[in-house]
Formats: sequence, structure tokens, C-alpha cells
Amino acid sequence: MNPDWEELLQLATQWVAKYRSQVGSLPVLAQVQPGWLTAQLPAAPPAEGEPPEAWFADLDRLILPAVTHWNHPGFLGYFGITGSPPGVAADLVSSALNVNGMLWKTCPALTELEQVVLSWYAQALGLPGSWFGMITDTASTSTLLALGAARERALPGTRDRGLQGAPRLRLYCSQEAHSSVDKAAMVLGLGRDNVVRVPADAQFRMQPELLAAAVHRDRQEGYLPFAVVATVGTTSSTSVDPVPEIAEVCRENRLWLHVDAAYAGSAAVAPEFRWALAGCELADSFVANPHKWLFTPIDCSCLFTAQPEAFRQAYSLVPTYLTTDVAGAVDLMDYSFQLGRRFRALKLWFVFRAYGTKGLAEIIRKHVALAQEFAGWLEASKDFELLAPVPFSVVNFRWHPQGLDDEKALAEANQRLLHAVNASGRVFLSHTTLKGRFALHLAVGNMETDRKTVEKAWWEITNAAQTLGFS
Amino acid sequence: MNPDWEELLQLATQWVAKYRSQVGSLPVLAQVQPGWLTAQLPAAPPAEGEPPEAWFADLDRLILPAVTHWNHPGFLGYFGITGSPPGVAADLVSSALNVNGMLWKTCPALTELEQVVLSWYAQALGLPGSWFGMITDTASTSTLLALGAARERALPGTRDRGLQGAPRLRLYCSQEAHSSVDKAAMVLGLGRDNVVRVPADAQFRMQPELLAAAVHRDRQEGYLPFAVVATVGTTSSTSVDPVPEIAEVCRENRLWLHVDAAYAGSAAVAPEFRWALAGCELADSFVANPHKWLFTPIDCSCLFTAQPEAFRQAYSLVPTYLTTDVAGAVDLMDYSFQLGRRFRALKLWFVFRAYGTKGLAEIIRKHVALAQEFAGWLEASKDFELLAPVPFSVVNFRWHPQGLDDEKALAEANQRLLHAVNASGRVFLSHTTLKGRFALHLAVGNMETDRKTVEKAWWEITNAAQTLGFS
Repeated sequence: MNPDWEELLQLATQWVAKYRSQVGSLPVLAQVQPGWLTAQLPAAPPAEGEPPEAWFADLDRLILPAVTHWNHPGFLGYFGITGSPPGVAADLVSSALNVNGMLWKTCPALTELEQVVLSWYAQALGLPGSWFGMITDTASTSTLLALGAARERALPGTRDRGLQGAPRLRLYCSQEAHSSVDKAAMVLGLGRDNVVRVPADAQFRMQPELLAAAVHRDRQEGYLPFAVVATVGTTSSTSVDPVPEIAEVCRENRLWLHVDAAYAGSAAVAPEFRWALAGCELADSFVANPHKWLFTPIDCSCLFTAQPEAFRQAYSLVPTYLTTDVAGAVDLMDYSFQLGRRFRALKLWFVFRAYGTKGLAEIIRKHVALAQEFAGWLEASKDFELLAPVPFSVVNFRWHPQGLDDEKALAEANQRLLHAVNASGRVFLSHTTLKGRFALHLAVGNMETDRKTVEKAWWEITNAAQTLGFS
Repeated sequence: MNPDWEELLQLATQWVAKYRSQVGSLPVLAQVQPGWLTAQLPAAPPAEGEPPEAWFADLDRLILPAVTHWNHPGFLGYFGITGSPPGVAADLVSSALNVNGMLWKTCPALTELEQVVLSWYAQALGLPGSWFGMITDTASTSTLLALGAARERALPGTRDRGLQGAPRLRLYCSQEAHSSVDKAAMVLGLGRDNVVRVPADAQFRMQPELLAAAVHRDRQEGYLPFAVVATVGTTSSTSVDPVPEIAEVCRENRLWLHVDAAYAGSAAVAPEFRWALAGCELADSFVANPHKWLFTPIDCSCLFTAQPEAFRQAYSLVPTYLTTDVAGAVDLMDYSFQLGRRFRALKLWFVFRAYGTKGLAEIIRKHVALAQEFAGWLEASKDFELLAPVPFSVVNFRWHPQGLDDEKALAEANQRLLHAVNASGRVFLSHTTLKGRFALHLAVGNMETDRKTVEKAWWEITNAAQTLGFS
């Protein structure tokens, strides 16, 4: 009954090699309507097994048309990403090993490689290699875990007593911080209302003096400030909060400092981008995602902490059936609410070994240069304008035809432009809002994205603008 | 710079095929000491890339000796698992597609296949195919998400206001429930002290009349009961809580019913085990893990709910940069604190297509038969005793040499026995405690485990007992 390993993996390998060589010729954005795939699939599971050829044929027939191709060089929305060949090969090994690293003993290699490779990653970014590191599925989980540890440090015993009757904890981040900060507050029982969003400056950076004032005011009103989330590379504009000044406010007020560098943290493998992580060595916890901009397949979010004991105090709980007799070993389940974990470190290990820090820095540099070049074309154009600085590989801009100055009309025009560009199937951009202005958001993060891709994007944009009129 | 897809995946395929064919001859339990792997690895990341042969050679040289082989047929601890070939092949496709299914639009196939295949899974277990389903990484995450939705239903607006000043919520489960229930209470700000562990009967099942009494008493004392977690297949003894009676208590008291069937739920693909899920159709939420006993590689935990709107109310939060213009589509980020997600449904899809529900039921049957046969040998032996009934594929037992009746001495003898058996490297068992008695825990869940494996385990156990003495 059991199909042959080699035969199946050969089929999968052939399928993948063909797919990855052709992906650039597929529409970036899936062209199907909601329900299309559901309608094609049997409503009930098969009673009898089918031959492998049938499943693989359905990947082409049913899955591919309904995939939005994050691998397409023209995928320039959100944060462009790359599942590089070494990362994917390692992930296959991980799937096949199929270990569960809840305890050191249940897979020493998983536990120790995760520690070592995360230390490599921290060092590659110029951060302390001595930090404790672990891999989670998403930055949302990493930030939730970090703020849970911060909550327990602020109010020891909350894990047992709960928050009912506790002082009203408050948490700070900038207006531009990611929604995962709110979601963490929701899950942790703190409440969104206790997430104080500190105003950002003209360049979308948290204003530390306004942070200090908010903390001071909250204390006077009986709240208990306990943590700040600073962002290095915000989701919309990739702005960098002034972490050294924020860290100082945290030090003075004994607040936990968590840094969300999910996207931009990896840029610091290139020394010229280390400035962005200034002050981060003072953080209590720090997250950066190799699955965003270090060419590692999803899912790989790296959570670092200078306070591993705070995580243990927040999360460790060892039932009898999970006790071990191994002294001096880290059991990763003690640092998280998740018990089981997949062997995710392998893929990051292979990425470092394949490219080396120099090779990784080269790719980062190329991506930033492409974004800067694109920004230059915008600035030289009379009909487009930049809406934010471009410190990394993301450009926020809008179509601004001469004479069209009503904000609502501009938003509508840009929405139509975006829709037209994305409907082409050749490139894909996303959108955001910056200071109330609707912005088109172009992000370079795919290894296959080159100058031709960015030129094509510019052509699609200007061509769609011409077709839509005004200019 | 970019290595060739086909070359790398061929290397990985060859490595995997060789590893999986040889895994039965490797020691089950890693034979290394803590720190062994760490000491072998460079402390800093490589600056230059290395050729693929070097990384793959290190898989053999450094990783394999430090792996506890969950793929070994003799892995009989915790819950034995299988990453089947179709599941691993699909996971390779998933890694290579490298999509992020935060929104329907960012990968319609991921979103819709997840819905359809989870409906297949529910139907295969005799549960409502109309339930809303989603895949998470672990049952711990699934249970946390479910209890978070239950908290919001009990106290609408908690996501905004937080729990400070809220009534003291209470949550119920049996003494035998998994530690993930406590961890969820810790994370959600409810506190472990508000997890009421209802006593179990002689067969380790929650006693519904004691549940009802605890709920009643708590109400009188000013607590706010809000949820019950029933377990189908508890971690230690695989006992099945009386879900129909528990559901009735929940209905009368308006409590959210979450069922943790992480391990045993999958047994119900064989109709003769459907009894175990009686009453589960009344649950508000239900979790079962195909990565435990449905031959799907880690990670694949399936969370079902009859109340998707409660999940949306607890978790939905849509920042501008994630708004979409697609009407009538499910955006999975609205049902979770995690924003991004890997394409996990592919592996479960391939598993169903490869084996069909009949083929899956056959494997389950075989596993249960092996466990029952092993239990028969124990019962026929004068020196061993069963410590719990064997409804599925797990046997809890102990060595009980005639004349040795002191509980402490028995625990010590069994710990020594366990250590000796596991040191053999040929089989691996784990342990637990049942009614204060130290138990050896043998779990059949690997497709490659056959009668010979179980005979070998029995031989290792009786041989070690003889060597250790007493009998």
C-alpha cells in the first residue's frame, strides 16, 4: 500500500523544477473567483486510494490556477519573499525527518541547531550572539510570546491568578506598528484599548518624547505601563523607530522593550544597513523573519531574547509525561505555549551555508538598489510622487496627475490604477495608507526580481495611468 | 549564485530515500550528550557559500547522530507518528510554492483547499462536514484559539477592554486533560488557578456529575464558568471523556464545549471507533491532529468550529494594508492571531488521495490490533500489569515483580527498566503517571511498526527485567 519514497519524491521534484522554471510566465495574481476551486473538488473524501499521477495532475489542473504566485519575479506586493532552493531542499529533509522537538531528548539536533543557527543569524545582523533564540511560525506568534513574557515579568503570578483584579497594564507602539501588536493584546487579555499608539513623525517614526509623555500620563492616571514595541521597518513605509531613544525611555520606566524587525532586520546582513538596528542590542526581545527577507521558505520567524528566564517563568509547565532525566539541556517547550515543533532550523542553516553572509548581503543590496532606482523614476516623473522615504526595498507612491488634487479623487484614481496593473497578471503591487493618503506599495524581495521586472512594473503602471486618463 | 533546483532536490531526494530505508537500523533514541552538536558547529556563520555536497554530508555527520528517530519502527513513546511518503511529497510542493495564505486573494488555493480537505476529514470521522475548519501548527495553538473565542463569546468586548475588572472566568477539564489547557489559560490571562480539573473515574474519564457540581458551586461563589474542554483520547491513558453527558452540562449552563481529540480523533476513520466521538457533533470547537495519527507530516493540527463567527469576533482585525476587494471570500487571518500561514492542506489532501478512507482505516486497525496483542502478553504475564484500558493503540503498564509491592520501589524499578530498554536503541517507550503509579507508555502510530517490532519491544522489556533482577 505504501507508495515508494523515491518514486514519489522524483515526481515531486520534477513537478517543482518545472513549476519554478515556468512561474514567471503564469499570472502573478490568481485569476479565479471565490469558490472556483471548491466547486472542482469532490465534496467528500475518496474511499479508495488513487495513483500518484492523479494527485500530481491535479496540482496543475486545480491548484496552480488558484495560486497567487509569491514566487513570480513580478510579485511586488506586501513584502516580496523567496523560498530559495537550499531552503526548500532543507525543508524536504525536515518533512522527511518528521521529528517533534518538544524536548531536547525528542530531537537534540533540532534543539541545538535552532540555538546555534539563531546565534549565527543574530551575529550576522550585528546583534548579540549570546541571545537565546527560537523559531516560531510567524512574527505574530513571536510578538505574542514576547509580550506574554513581559506581562509575567511585570506582574509575577499572572499565569496562575489571571488578570482579573490586576492593575490595568498598558503597552505602547507607534501608529505605524503592525496589527499583530493589537492581536497580542487581545489574546493576552490586556485589551486593544490598552495598546497606546504613539504618534509618528513626518517620516513615520515613533516620537520618543511623546512615548515618554504617554507613559508618564498613564502612570498618573493609575495605569501600569509594562512594555513597548518598537518597529524596525514598519509594514507600510518600512520606517525605523528611534530604538536608542525608545530603549532609554524603557530603561527609565522599567518597561520591556520588544523590537519587531520582521522585515527589515535581515537587511543588516549587509553592514551598510546595520544603522537600522542601532539600539536593538538593548532590547529584551527581538523578532526578525528569515521567511520575509532572508530567502528561507515559510514558516521561519526568529524570536530572540536577552531574558530567557522570563519566558520560562511565563510558559514552563511540565506534566509528568514530559519530564526528562537529561540535565543541562534546553527543552524548547518551556519557552512557548506550543508544545510540539517542526525542525525549522534546517532550512535557515542551509541558506547560510549556501550563500554565506556575503552572498546574502549581495542579494539584499541588489533589492535595495532596484527599489531606489524605481523611486528615482517616480521622482523624475511629473505624474507620480513618493509618499515615504525608501530606506530598504519598499517604495510607497501614488499617481498624482497634474491638476487632480482632491484626496478622495486621488485615492479612487490610484485604486483603479492598482486594479488595472494587478489585472495584467504580469506584476502585483499592494496598497496601504500613509497619513490618510492611499498609497501604492511596491516591495522587492524575490531573488528572481531583476531590473527588467522593475522596468516592466514601471511600464505597466505608466501605461495603465495613460489608459485611465487624466494625464 | 543560485544553485540549480533540480540538482538540489535530487540530492535531497536521494538523501531522504536512503535515510528512510535505513532508519530502522539506527538507534531510536539519540545517543549524544547535551552540547555535542553545538560543539561540532562553527560558532559564527560562514562568510562565503559552500557547495551542496558539504551541507548534505553534514546531515549524515552531524544531524543524524543527534536525531531521535520518530520514523524508526521501534519509536513507541508519547504518540507514535508517521510522515508518510505522500504527505512528505506534498510538503515539498508546499515549500516550493512558498505562498502565504493570510488572505484568500494571496492564495485562493490554500484557503479553499484547507476548507474542503478539513470538511473531508470531519466527514471521514463521522462529524459535520459543514463545520468551519482551519489548520494550525499544534493542538496547543488550536485549543488556545478555541478558548479565546469562547472567552470573547462569554464576555463580548474583552478583546478591547481586557480582563482587568472582568468577572472571574472559569474553565473546566478533567484531571487527565493535556497541559495545553493550562497553557491556554495562562496565555489568555485567565490564570491556571481558574482551570478546574474535574476528577476522573477509575477508567480515567471525566465525571460529568462532578463537572456539573463544580460549575454550580463556582456560580454560587461568584465565578463565571464559560468553557469545558473534554478529551477524546487523553495523553496518558487515551481514555475518552463522556462527551454526550458533558455536552448536556454545557447546554444547561451555556458553556462553550471544546473537544481535544488530538490523538484519538483520527481513529474514527475506522467506523468501529466512531463510538469515541459520540456527542462531539454538539461541540462548539473540536481539534484533531493528522500529524499524530493520520500519517501526515508535522505540523498539521485541524481546528473545527460550529461557531466561526465567534472566532471572527475574537480575532478579526483588518489594517488598511490588508483590506481586499474580494466579496464572499474567507480570509483565514480573521480567525486567528497568526497572520501568515503555510500551505499545509496539501499534505493532508495527498494523504487522503493516496490511501482513501478505507486505506487509512486499515492502518488504524492494524495499530490497534498490535496494541491489543501486546496488552494480551502483559495480561498473560505474572510479572507485568496493565494500568489502564486499551481502547486504541496505546498501552500503559508496569513491571510488577511478585513480592515487590511498595509503590516507591515499583516506580524506581520501572524507571530503571525504562532506562535499560531505551538505552538499547532498538525501541523507545515513554512514561507517565496514572493514579500516582509510574507507568510505562507504549504507543503504536508508525506505519512501519509491525508485529515483529512489538515482539521485539516485549523481548527487550522482559529481557531487561530479567537482567535487573527481582524475578
